[in-house]
Amino acid sequence: MNSFGHRFRFTTFGESHGKALGCIVDGVPAGIKIDEEFIQNEMNRRKPGSNKYATARKEGDVVEILSGVFEGHTTGTSISMIIFNENQKSSDYSNVKDLFRPGHADFTYFNKYGIRDYRGGGRSSARETAARVAAGAIAKLLLKELNIDVKSGICEIDGIKAENFDFENVSKSEIFALDTNVEQAQKDAILEAKNSHNSVGGVALINVKNVPIGLGEPLYFKLDSQIANAMMGINAVKAVEIGDGILASRVKGYDNNDQIRKNGFKTNHSGGILGGISNGDDINVKVYFKATPSIFIEQETIDINNNEVDCKLKGRHDPCVAVRGSVVAESMMALVLADMVLLNMSSKIENVKKVYTKQ
Amino acid sequence: MNSFGHRFRFTTFGESHGKALGCIVDGVPAGIKIDEEFIQNEMNRRKPGSNKYATARKEGDVVEILSGVFEGHTTGTSISMIIFNENQKSSDYSNVKDLFRPGHADFTYFNKYGIRDYRGGGRSSARETAARVAAGAIAKLLLKELNIDVKSGICEIDGIKAENFDFENVSKSEIFALDTNVEQAQKDAILEAKNSHNSVGGVALINVKNVPIGLGEPLYFKLDSQIANAMMGINAVKAVEIGDGILASRVKGYDNNDQIRKNGFKTNHSGGILGGISNGDDINVKVYFKATPSIFIEQETIDINNNEVDCKLKGRHDPCVAVRGSVVAESMMALVLADMVLLNMSSKIENVKKVYTKQ
Amino acid sequence: MNSFGHRFRFTTFGESHGKALGCIVDGVPAGIKIDEEFIQNEMNRRKPGSNKYATARKEGDVVEILSGVFEGHTTGTSISMIIFNENQKSSDYSNVKDLFRPGHADFTYFNKYGIRDYRGGGRSSARETAARVAAGAIAKLLLKELNIDVKSGICEIDGIKAENFDFENVSKSEIFALDTNVEQAQKDAILEAKNSHNSVGGVALINVKNVPIGLGEPLYFKLDSQIANAMMGINAVKAVEIGDGILASRVKGYDNNDQIRKNGFKTNHSGGILGGISNGDDINVKVYFKATPSIFIEQETIDINNNEVDCKLKGRHDPCVAVRGSVVAESMMALVLADMVLLNMSSKIENVKKVYTKQ
Amino acid sequence: MNSFGHRFRFTTFGESHGKALGCIVDGVPAGIKIDEEFIQNEMNRRKPGSNKYATARKEGDVVEILSGVFEGHTTGTSISMIIFNENQKSSDYSNVKDLFRPGHADFTYFNKYGIRDYRGGGRSSARETAARVAAGAIAKLLLKELNIDVKSGICEIDGIKAENFDFENVSKSEIFALDTNVEQAQKDAILEAKNSHNSVGGVALINVKNVPIGLGEPLYFKLDSQIANAMMGINAVKAVEIGDGILASRVKGYDNNDQIRKNGFKTNHSGGILGGISNGDDINVKVYFKATPSIFIEQETIDINNNEVDCKLKGRHDPCVAVRGSVVAESMMALVLADMVLLNMSSKIENVKKVYTKQ
Repeated sequence: MNSFGHRFRFTTFGESHGKALGCIVDGVPAGIKIDEEFIQNEMNRRKPGSNKYATARKEGDVVEILSGVFEGHTTGTSISMIIFNENQKSSDYSNVKDLFRPGHADFTYFNKYGIRDYRGGGRSSARETAARVAAGAIAKLLLKELNIDVKSGICEIDGIKAENFDFENVSKSEIFALDTNVEQAQKDAILEAKNSHNSVGGVALINVKNVPIGLGEPLYFKLDSQIANAMMGINAVKAVEIGDGILASRVKGYDNNDQIRKNGFKTNHSGGILGGISNGDDINVKVYFKATPSIFIEQETIDINNNEVDCKLKGRHDPCVAVRGSVVAESMMALVLADMVLLNMSSKIENVKKVYTKQ
Repeated sequence: MNSFGHRFRFTTFGESHGKALGCIVDGVPAGIKIDEEFIQNEMNRRKPGSNKYATARKEGDVVEILSGVFEGHTTGTSISMIIFNENQKSSDYSNVKDLFRPGHADFTYFNKYGIRDYRGGGRSSARETAARVAAGAIAKLLLKELNIDVKSGICEIDGIKAENFDFENVSKSEIFALDTNVEQAQKDAILEAKNSHNSVGGVALINVKNVPIGLGEPLYFKLDSQIANAMMGINAVKAVEIGDGILASRVKGYDNNDQIRKNGFKTNHSGGILGGISNGDDINVKVYFKATPSIFIEQETIDINNNEVDCKLKGRHDPCVAVRGSVVAESMMALVLADMVLLNMSSKIENVKKVYTKQ
Repeated sequence: MNSFGHRFRFTTFGESHGKALGCIVDGVPAGIKIDEEFIQNEMNRRKPGSNKYATARKEGDVVEILSGVFEGHTTGTSISMIIFNENQKSSDYSNVKDLFRPGHADFTYFNKYGIRDYRGGGRSSARETAARVAAGAIAKLLLKELNIDVKSGICEIDGIKAENFDFENVSKSEIFALDTNVEQAQKDAILEAKNSHNSVGGVALINVKNVPIGLGEPLYFKLDSQIANAMMGINAVKAVEIGDGILASRVKGYDNNDQIRKNGFKTNHSGGILGGISNGDDINVKVYFKATPSIFIEQETIDINNNEVDCKLKGRHDPCVAVRGSVVAESMMALVLADMVLLNMSSKIENVKKVYTKQ
Repeated sequence: MNSFGHRFRFTTFGESHGKALGCIVDGVPAGIKIDEEFIQNEMNRRKPGSNKYATARKEGDVVEILSGVFEGHTTGTSISMIIFNENQKSSDYSNVKDLFRPGHADFTYFNKYGIRDYRGGGRSSARETAARVAAGAIAKLLLKELNIDVKSGICEIDGIKAENFDFENVSKSEIFALDTNVEQAQKDAILEAKNSHNSVGGVALINVKNVPIGLGEPLYFKLDSQIANAMMGINAVKAVEIGDGILASRVKGYDNNDQIRKNGFKTNHSGGILGGISNGDDINVKVYFKATPSIFIEQETIDINNNEVDCKLKGRHDPCVAVRGSVVAESMMALVLADMVLLNMSSKIENVKKVYTKQ
C-alpha cells in the first residue's frame, strides 16, 4: 500500500531518520528524454531549510537515478531514484520516544503496528514527500510531451486569502504566494505563529492547462476521485475542492452549470471535470492543509503505557506546512494525470488500432 | 475501472435505461448472516419516487442475490446482486440524443468513447448508485459483526445549515434532515427551486461510531484518502472535508491539535483520523453535492456536430441530488471501512499468528 | 479475487447449482461491434450435454448481455453477461453433503471457509468456466480487430498423442481432436473409462497466429507468466508448457535457440515468446488436464466430522474434462492477449503521442 | 508491472550493468525479527562466481536494508533493499550492441520499447533475480513465524534425472543436486556443454512442508495459478508442473485421486493443492529451465537494421541456468506463500473477529 497509480505507478520507501528514501516509478513509456537538472530543480522547490518560513532542517535532497534510464532516455523499465538523508538530529526525539505527540500519527502507528520509529515521525513524516516530488518530476516529463502544464501556488495562509492568482509570482515568492497584495500579510502570519511557538494552516491552488479531453476512468477511477485520493493522502490535508467546490453546493443549478459554445465552455465552475472526465478546460483544485501539528507550546498527552503526561516538543519544523506542501500537491497532480493519460489510451478501439498499425 | 476496493471489492454494471444494473461483491468473509430484508431496506432508503422532494421516476429497486450466499450465510465466494430497471422513459431523451446537456457527462463521454448511451445519461446516471447501496449493505453486515456503526444525514441545503446533528431525526425526515429547526426551510428551498425549474445543492454529513483503532494503510491507501476517493467519485460531489476540514486550515496548530487523555482524545478536530489511520474516535466527513445539473430552464450548448443549439430538457429529476446522495455516501463509507477492516488484519505478525493458531 | 486481468479485466460469479452465473467484463474499448451470435456460438462449443463424450447435464447456456452495449457496439462501460442455470439436479448431491469427494475442492473449501455449497461443487465447479467463455468471446471480438487468431484443439487423451495438428479438424470432431489418425483411439479411451466408471485425462494445444510483436509486460506480467497463470487456474489443470516446454530443458542451447533471418525466426522452439514478450511468431501452449476426479468407483474419504467413510458418487460428469476444457483454455488465452494488447499500448512515448494527436 | 503479489508485494528495479538493483517489499507485517545474516546467506546461495559450474562474473551481492526496519524488527512500512553492481564488463557487449542474440530478449525489448540497454541484457538479465532472492528472504522470515518450510533442489540436468530427492544434500552440492547417485553425471554434463561452448537445461524441484490448509484465493488467485505465474516468470523457464503434473493427465481418475483418511491424504498426487487451495500436504512443484541461450557457437541473426549477420558472443555465462535458478524458484515460492498467508486471513468472519477482539 506504498504505491500509487495504476498504469503510471510509483512506490516509495524511507523514513525521516533512516538511511535514505526514494521511489520506484513503473509504467513510464520508453523514449522520454530525462532531464536530470529539471528533476533536481523540482526537488529544490520542495527542499527544506531554504528560508525563515520553512523548517531549519537542511537537506541537499540530491536525487540519484539508479535504473530505467539509458543514454539519457527512459527504457520502459522501472526507474529507481534515491535520496540519502543527511541532516537528521535524532536526539531531538529522545524525549518523545515513548509518548504520542498530539496531532501526529504517533498514536495511530503505535496502535496499528505495535512498534514505531519515533525519530522524526518515521515513515509518517512529511519528509517522505520528497520521493513523491522525484516521481512527480518524471510524470511532468511525460506530460510535457503532450504540452500539459501543471502549476501550483499558495492562495491562503491563516485565513488570509489571495484574490489574484498569478502563477508567475510563485517562483519569485519565498512562500509561493499567488497574490502579491496579500503576500506580506501571509508571511507575517507565518512568522507571528512561529515566534509564538505555534503554527498556521494554508491552502494550495493547483492549476492544469492544456488538458486533453477524456482523462478519467469511470466509475471508480474518475479523474476527480483520484485527485481527491492523491491530495487527501498528503500529510496534513483535511479538505479538497474541485472547481468551485463548496460554492457549487450553495448556488442554483442554472448558475453552476457551464454552458457550452462552439469554442468551449462559457464558464468553468466545474474545474474542468464533468462526470469524472476532463472536459478540456483548466483543472482547478484547492487543497487545504491544517496548521502544522508540531508546535512548541506545552500540550497534554499520554505515553505508551497510557500515563497522562505533558508534551514539550523539540526539533525543527515548518510553521506552515502548506507552503512546501503545495509543491507536493502539484507533484501528485502530475502523477495522477500521467496515470490517466496512459489509462485513457485504450478508451476507443480506433486508438487501439492506431497504435497497432504500422506506418 | 468499474471496481472499488482492494480486499473487500465491488464491481458494478448497468445503465440508466438498460435492462438491469447490479454488482459483484468480492472478498466477503464466509459465515456472515445475510439479512435480505436489511439489504432491501437500504435500497428503499435511496430509491427514487418516494416523495415530492425526489424525482418522479418510480423504481421498485428490488435487489436479487444470485450467488455467494448459501443457506442464509456468505460462503466466501463472489456475491452477485441484480436490480432490473422498470420505469424507464427513454422517449424523454430523444431530443437530447445529439446534444450535450450542460453540467452533465454527455460531452466528456462522447469525446472519450466516441459513442454514448444518451438515454438518461447511460452509465453516468446517478441510477448506477443503486448498485453501490446494494454493495454497501453487504459491507454494513460485515461492519455490524464488529459493531461499527455508519450513519448519514443532510446538514445543509441551498446554503441553509443544520446546527444540531440529530441522526435520530434522519429516518423520520423526507429529506434526511439532521436538524429539525431548519428542516422546513431546507424543504422549502428544494420546492422553490423545483417550481422555478431550477435546482439546489446540499451537504451530507457521514458519521461513524465505534471505529477500531488502526484502519487505514499508509501511505497511499490512507483511510482519509480512500474516503475522499470514494466520496468525490459520487455523482455531483465537488468537495470533501474530513473532521474540521477547511476550518483546520484557518486556526492555529494549538487549537487544532487534539490533545490526549487516558480515556481518549479531548477534542475531535481531526475527524477520527491521524496520519491516515483511524484513532478510535468518531469519523466525521462532509460531502458537498452541487446543484442538480438537470434543470428545465433553457440553456446554451452544442450538438455532436459542434453546432450551437438551445437545450430544453425533459425527464424526471431530483431537484436536490444531495438528499438521496447522502445514502450513497453512507454506503461508500461502509464499503471503504469494510475494505480497511480486512486490510488491517495483517498489520502485525501477532495478528497473523492469531489467525493461524488452532484453538 | 474473482477477477482476472489488468486493463481488460473480467470478474465472475455463480455456483453450479445457484440461480445464475455470469461475469462483468471491464476495460473493453468503445466502438467494437458486438456479434451476439458469435458469442452464443462460443458458449455452445463449451456447453455440456452435446454428445456421449461429455456429461449428460444439459444446459442451454444462453448468454444475455445486460449492459455496456448500445446499438450493437461497446460503449467503453462495463459489460455484464448472465447465464441462468437450468438443469440442476441438486438431489444427486444429498449423499455427499457432509463428505469430501477425493480429488475435489470439497475438503479445502470447507476448511478455508467453514461453510460450502456442496451442490455440484458450488463455486469450485467447472460450470463456472461458462462465464470465462462468455468473457473470452468479448476478448476475441477485440482481437479480431487486430486479426489475432486464437485456436485450440485436443492433442492427447489418456496418453494417446496427436502427431498432426490440424485445427481445421477440431470443429468437426466431437472431442475437438487435432489428429484424425488417433481420434478414434482417443474416443475409445474416453468411452472405455466411462463404462468402467472411471475417467481419463488429456491435453489441449492452444495456438495463436498473427500476434503483434511486443505483448507482455516485464518483469512480473510477462506474457508467458500470465498464460501460465491463466491456464493453471483452469479446473483440473496440473501442468503448462510454453513452446517446446519440457523438451527445451533436455536439449542443448544451440538446438533450442531460434536463430533469426530477415524474414523471421528459423524455428519456433520458444513458442513465440522471448523474455516474456511476444516475438511475432505463433504462440503455442500445451495445457495438461488431470483425469476427472468425479468417478463412480468406491473411494475412501472422511466426512466433516473427521469420520472415515466410503464415498460413492452419483451425478453427471465428463469422463474427460480436457475436451470441453480446451475451449476454456482457448478463451483464457484470448483474455490474456486482450489484456496484453491494451497494456502494451503505452510502451513507447511515440505511441502515447499517436493517440493524443488529433488527425 | 515490475511488482508481484497482492498483500505481500514486492517491486524490483535495476539492470545487469546499471549502478544498482534492488526492491521494495510492501505489506510486511510489523514485528518480525529481521535476521540480516540470514538474508545475506540467501543472497550467497544465488550469487554468481562461486564455482566452475556457474558464470565467472563475481559479485559480492551484498544487500543493504534502507528502510522499514527499526531496532531489528519490521515496522509495517515498506522495506527497501539495495545491491550495488560491482563486476560489470560492459565492453563484452560492444559487439552485440546492434544485434539480437538468439534465444534472448534483445529482439523483443527493442521492438517493444524502441530502445534497449544492450549491456548484459539490461533489465532482461537474470541478474535481476538477485532482487527476488532478497525479497524472498523477507518472505521466508514471515513464513518461519508459522513454521512453513520452503526448500529446493536440482532434480534433472540435461535429461539426467534424480531418483532420490534428498534435500539435505542440496546445501552440500555445488549444483544443488538432490540425488548423489546422479550428481556427478549431472556435473559432467554441465562441464561438457561448457567446454563445447554450448549449454544445458535442467529442472528444479520445490518442496514446501507444514503448509496451513486454506492458502489460495479462488477463482483467479488460486495457489497453483500463482505458483505457475511466479515460476513461468523466471528467466528461461518453459514449463511448470504441480504435483504429478503431466503424469496426472496420463493415468485414470481412480489412480490420480488422493483418497482421504483421518490422519490425512493417503497419497499426494495433487502436490498439496485441491481446487487451487492448499490441503495441508506437501506442495511439490517442478520448474523446467531451458538451456542457457548464451552460447559461444556462431549463430545466425539480424541486426537492428534488419541485416542478416553472424553472432559471436563474448561474456561470462552460466552453462546451466537451472542451478542458480532453483534458488530463485525457491524464493518465488516463498513470496507466493507469504502473499497467500496474508490473503487467507480474512476468509472467515470468525478470523476477522479474532483479530479485532481485544484479549
